[in-house]
Amino acid sequence: MGINLSNLTKISGLTKPTGYSASEIKLALSSRQMKPSEVLEQCIANIDLYEKHVGAWASINTDSARELARELDDKNPSGALFGVPFGIKDNIDAFDMPTEYGTDMYLGYRPSRDAACVAGMRASNGIALGKTICTEFAHRHPGKTANPWNIEHTPGGSSSGSAAAVASGMVPIAIGTQTTGSVIRPAAYCGVIGYKPSYGDFNISGVLANTPSFDTLGFFANCVDDLVLVRKALLDESIPELKKLSLKGARVAIATKPFWEEACTSSQQMIEEAASVLKDAGAKVFALDDQGVFENLSEWNIEISGYEFARTLAHERRLAFHKLSEILRNGRMADGFRVAFSSYQAAKKNLELLRIKFDEVLKGVDFVICPSAQSAAPKGLESTGSADFNMAWTSLHCPVISLPVAQEKDTALPLGLQVVGTRYSDDRLIKFAEAVFKCLTN
Amino acid sequence: MGINLSNLTKISGLTKPTGYSASEIKLALSSRQMKPSEVLEQCIANIDLYEKHVGAWASINTDSARELARELDDKNPSGALFGVPFGIKDNIDAFDMPTEYGTDMYLGYRPSRDAACVAGMRASNGIALGKTICTEFAHRHPGKTANPWNIEHTPGGSSSGSAAAVASGMVPIAIGTQTTGSVIRPAAYCGVIGYKPSYGDFNISGVLANTPSFDTLGFFANCVDDLVLVRKALLDESIPELKKLSLKGARVAIATKPFWEEACTSSQQMIEEAASVLKDAGAKVFALDDQGVFENLSEWNIEISGYEFARTLAHERRLAFHKLSEILRNGRMADGFRVAFSSYQAAKKNLELLRIKFDEVLKGVDFVICPSAQSAAPKGLESTGSADFNMAWTSLHCPVISLPVAQEKDTALPLGLQVVGTRYSDDRLIKFAEAVFKCLTN
Repeated sequence: MGINLSNLTKISGLTKPTGYSASEIKLALSSRQMKPSEVLEQCIANIDLYEKHVGAWASINTDSARELARELDDKNPSGALFGVPFGIKDNIDAFDMPTEYGTDMYLGYRPSRDAACVAGMRASNGIALGKTICTEFAHRHPGKTANPWNIEHTPGGSSSGSAAAVASGMVPIAIGTQTTGSVIRPAAYCGVIGYKPSYGDFNISGVLANTPSFDTLGFFANCVDDLVLVRKALLDESIPELKKLSLKGARVAIATKPFWEEACTSSQQMIEEAASVLKDAGAKVFALDDQGVFENLSEWNIEISGYEFARTLAHERRLAFHKLSEILRNGRMADGFRVAFSSYQAAKKNLELLRIKFDEVLKGVDFVICPSAQSAAPKGLESTGSADFNMAWTSLHCPVISLPVAQEKDTALPLGLQVVGTRYSDDRLIKFAEAVFKCLTN
Repeated sequence: MGINLSNLTKISGLTKPTGYSASEIKLALSSRQMKPSEVLEQCIANIDLYEKHVGAWASINTDSARELARELDDKNPSGALFGVPFGIKDNIDAFDMPTEYGTDMYLGYRPSRDAACVAGMRASNGIALGKTICTEFAHRHPGKTANPWNIEHTPGGSSSGSAAAVASGMVPIAIGTQTTGSVIRPAAYCGVIGYKPSYGDFNISGVLANTPSFDTLGFFANCVDDLVLVRKALLDESIPELKKLSLKGARVAIATKPFWEEACTSSQQMIEEAASVLKDAGAKVFALDDQGVFENLSEWNIEISGYEFARTLAHERRLAFHKLSEILRNGRMADGFRVAFSSYQAAKKNLELLRIKFDEVLKGVDFVICPSAQSAAPKGLESTGSADFNMAWTSLHCPVISLPVAQEKDTALPLGLQVVGTRYSDDRLIKFAEAVFKCLTN
């Protein structure tokens, strides 16, 4: 415990670059210590160094990024993301880049418009550097990306490239999406901050749908402060700056359900040690009493995900069924066609009430902690790992932040700890996450 | 009252064709009285006759529709929409047609994939005939479409072309979308059946977002049975067929709030006469006690619509602000930027609880009736009329069916009556709507 990942330098033969955070860039630019072009060149230098090993990118728009950076060089900083290069998961539209959804079917396809989030980041003077690899239609069939900490291990998915790009200092911020565990799991595997906001806070128009009832925009970053910047950029410039929060008296619930027994020894140990450190900092730490919320959750999640996903991909099913991966065809899509509309609808109604019940459950809790994934990134690139530890929070529409607070002894791979809050309390959760991160890594 | 619109023939110099319903087509095809090609040629004949007056279409794909129809000619009928030509509102993607969103900005733009609903209708062997005119980005700035009953009057919007195409027998079914009143109002103005399902029943991936919290797919048809066919096609083949339902003992609530006093005399009279006819049929008719649900509803609706719409169109705002219509720029978009994120979030939370409260309110009610719009279609094409009578039900996520049950004496224009049900009870509402329609028009 207590490992500050930014201090790590050489892991498994691959040097992990420090990588600027957007907040550091903001400071350096506003004090004129750096220019946007210099920031961008650092990112491009890291791409030149690591991309051949990591494979984080579907396409990179170096020329237009350089052009925009040069324009910004001469301007006074304005906008929450002024001069901050960012990556865009390749299931999200950008008008000036290809959008290929992690499949060969749409090679070179150009959408007509930016997704709301891309246009919003650009309107805040962020610099769109390229599209990052996502798994096939943001489901489970992997792309080319490897884990920057050990390229024989998966980076996780479906936001594989976004996590890996931030982890290797190629961009300080990358956009991802989460339908089950597609932000939090790769963030944990790649040792970066991952943020899955409350469902609906961020506009997802222009993002390829997977399961509309759960699809949520997410972000990868190198520091918690950066989450405030993306909220300012996309939600409201008046979102408050991060202020220090004491953990004294904070009510911290450890979620040992629904999948605790699946967590590896290192993950369980991480939580136990984190609990002890947080207690020392004055927090009240106790086991989460879920009051039955988790009982049927995964069943309902599977029905809804299957039903919606099968219909979202109706076009591909109709015209290119043989081009879909087997895991997609025979997994979620096949599951989806076994679900009757009446069961789907019942599951949605049940979940709506469960979310309100969970608001009540969390009334005596400031935040929940649990492992971000079962273990560190599994070996091999053929699977992106399990989302079991993420399913509940995504279904419940809760905000989640994954913090890279530990490193597995044997493999030297990072472990993530999830901090989970009540729906629609993201600004408060971000403050707690910052305090937890400082407390556990200093 | 009691006017069966299909008996009307000559209105204001424009002959209103009878137009097949999908259910009639199904019967004719399964009994081999007609072939799919013959059905299609009837639609094309009506387009040839009326399109120059009505302007319902953004693009028509006659050649590929004919080719598909010829293929179906030799096949045994299968699929809920076998051989049924349909129109697609031009804010919905189709891979083999342009998608222009009702604006010059995207002339000729070709999406890569079908929207989920288009692919689903095609998978049920429906024949996509073309894209129908929608207002600019499905907001208020009108397209070229005129009302088939009197071309000096608006067809309503934003699904202007879909309503007009069905009303003039160019297609038996057309897809639309509703964010406030964009299906129900044009259905009423154009004298056809309009169906705005429960929010979330139908997958809207591949549909241009307007206000994701309210955006709902909708349908226009010539008979209530056809709504069952589209539900079979897109939700589940096992959706039950329509069975006769008696209105004896049915609990019918008349909504005189929130906007009753805005309804024109004819609309008020229509509801009063409908109440009397339904009573004669054995229904219990009473005033809806909304228990305060309508109190802050429109305020919250405006905050959410504005906030989300402004962000959905972030790309156009950034790169083509001057090309947006004034009503869009200075209306909903400007409204949206005045809404703080905290107010937006509060409005969403309030509405979530209000929907659950409204479920309770409707426990003693089988369905609600009220006018579909303030009046018949207003004169002039520069405005698409008011959605005030639709805002509440859309915000509450309730299913709504507009029935063309009356005709204004002075103008000879149709009037629509809305039948509203509890969220997620669409199949039941469709049965009641059929009974109400028969009762009021026979």
